[in-house]
Amino acid sequence: MADEHPEHPEHRERRTRLAALVAAADADAALITRLVNVRYLTGLAASNAALLIRADGVAVLATDARYAGTARVAAPDLELVVDRATARVLVERAAASGARRLAFEAHHVTVERHAELAAAAGGHGPALVPLGHAVEELRKVKDEGEIALLRRACAITDGAFDIVLPTLRPGITEREIAVALERAMVDLGAEGPAFASIVAAGPDGAVPHHRPGDRPVALGDLLTMDFGALYGGYHADMTRTVAVGRVADWQREVYDLVAAAQRAGVEAARPGADTKDVDAAARDPIRAAGHGDDFPHGLGHGVGLEIHEAPLLGYDKTGRLTDRVPITAEPGVYLAGRGGVRIEDTLVVRADGPEILTKTTKDLLVV
Amino acid sequence: MADEHPEHPEHRERRTRLAALVAAADADAALITRLVNVRYLTGLAASNAALLIRADGVAVLATDARYAGTARVAAPDLELVVDRATARVLVERAAASGARRLAFEAHHVTVERHAELAAAAGGHGPALVPLGHAVEELRKVKDEGEIALLRRACAITDGAFDIVLPTLRPGITEREIAVALERAMVDLGAEGPAFASIVAAGPDGAVPHHRPGDRPVALGDLLTMDFGALYGGYHADMTRTVAVGRVADWQREVYDLVAAAQRAGVEAARPGADTKDVDAAARDPIRAAGHGDDFPHGLGHGVGLEIHEAPLLGYDKTGRLTDRVPITAEPGVYLAGRGGVRIEDTLVVRADGPEILTKTTKDLLVV
Repeated sequence: MADEHPEHPEHRERRTRLAALVAAADADAALITRLVNVRYLTGLAASNAALLIRADGVAVLATDARYAGTARVAAPDLELVVDRATARVLVERAAASGARRLAFEAHHVTVERHAELAAAAGGHGPALVPLGHAVEELRKVKDEGEIALLRRACAITDGAFDIVLPTLRPGITEREIAVALERAMVDLGAEGPAFASIVAAGPDGAVPHHRPGDRPVALGDLLTMDFGALYGGYHADMTRTVAVGRVADWQREVYDLVAAAQRAGVEAARPGADTKDVDAAARDPIRAAGHGDDFPHGLGHGVGLEIHEAPLLGYDKTGRLTDRVPITAEPGVYLAGRGGVRIEDTLVVRADGPEILTKTTKDLLVV
Repeated sequence: MADEHPEHPEHRERRTRLAALVAAADADAALITRLVNVRYLTGLAASNAALLIRADGVAVLATDARYAGTARVAAPDLELVVDRATARVLVERAAASGARRLAFEAHHVTVERHAELAAAAGGHGPALVPLGHAVEELRKVKDEGEIALLRRACAITDGAFDIVLPTLRPGITEREIAVALERAMVDLGAEGPAFASIVAAGPDGAVPHHRPGDRPVALGDLLTMDFGALYGGYHADMTRTVAVGRVADWQREVYDLVAAAQRAGVEAARPGADTKDVDAAARDPIRAAGHGDDFPHGLGHGVGLEIHEAPLLGYDKTGRLTDRVPITAEPGVYLAGRGGVRIEDTLVVRADGPEILTKTTKDLLVV
């Protein structure tokens, strides 16, 4: 594990950016408890860890004995405290150093834990003030090292599709396909699947988040596969829908509609674009075709150290896209009792046009 | 999915028991937001759901459109509210019905979410009061249906060990073994692994939570495998340590010590026993042999809908075991630079003696 995540200057740069936000918020330090945020800022992937970042950029990492060795390798330049009560020990540290305002992740710390931390701060210790989603905001824009990991995760995802595609035929079950995709990704070097794969045949395709079951694929089905690889902590996300044996006119029509909508969404994903407008670029043609109600979810979401992260792209979400933000574009049309089509890429917003990381064809394949 | 989790009377009984606790705490209702607790009380496994239980036992389930169909099948006797803001809509419901005190899961609700829920309750609405870990406490004692699922999960785990055992030989890597165990479990019917498998060869065995890497197994290694199957939502947990090719005297000595400690821990796991004494039953012989510092974790933990749940068995944890509580017993001795031994079963505390669910031999196997 240590070899996979050597200390690199990005972690220090990220901490410097966060420290500037802490200073701007008039806090003396920030306590980072969301594990994915600790990983982002230090490189340490652990199930118990916390990080204290002072406004001047000095940071202290805490983890328990299980991860002490890993932490020393991942973040050799950080002071390390080995203690099971990772958050509490850092609050005590902040209090001892005279901090007056300690920012904390109010979207992660529970009410119960907050009471414990407030007690650790003591009556004369620092006030706990909300940090907001500062680290998640920093995480939206990826550096090229992160994008390289996402690119590899997406290449593995493409490779798994290529391996499984020739095995798709009537009789194979949804669950067998999901298992085959996940095994192919691991064989190609993935740490595992980035999320529980969705494989939906025929009428099951009308359920956006269908869980693969024992339904065998049948001649004439549309078959939707939504899956992705986890690589170096980064999550790929791709969906393809194929036709089994033959294509009915309504299936071709819906497929072409979703494919056009998906292209429009991808094209709209430019620096400076509002996420609502990117969603609308894909949603408008679907609405115009009378299928507005059959596309009941947002266009996509950010991907990175989490499979769903900022920004969210939906008809009710706003916010500007910027350079180097990886997102998904995944419109779908779902027809109860008949089936559905969803087409999804992972892509990176770039000044010179979107970089599509998932490269599997979006032509309608008939298997 | 629906077929796997039909409504059964256990869910209603569990809600009735919780409602009695709500009434005893002088609350009008409880808002359950931990998803695993919602699943326990309703049978609905969803990534977005919440449950309102009134002190008189009447319950309302909330989930979003993705899971509405599943919810109607899982809990046909419950009123269902379909809304993305599952917790907020139930707080509004409680406020509208005139509730004065609404108990909530303070160990799950974040500080940020709490502020949203308090706003939803309104100035004249119910006060939010901590429920405590009431559902987790109920979950400690399993019904026979839950134990049957655990028994099946453990049988799959045993079966995977039998499949992989003949493939263990010098040269195979930790990661290859982990992948083979996980694939065998899925082939035998598991939903997936219950947790990230630990496979540690030679010196890696000295790290209790080693993550399997590219180290090849070598002649003379001790090889520790800690893995388990997920079945019907229930988690198996088993560890076995084998010797590769030959057994050095020190390896045999440590193995026999840990095996004796594990047997002593299992035997002590009786209804009425204090968890601290159960831990001590296994820890004392290891201490007496001079290896007290080489056993740096607790003896075990409850298993069920989570891989780690109440009760915890450690030298600093107290609490009485009771009938039908499934736990693990997993002492280990870890020698830096040399290797380690851990032996673990999943078992059920029973009045007539522990029912060991993982049945793989604990004799020292030489592969």
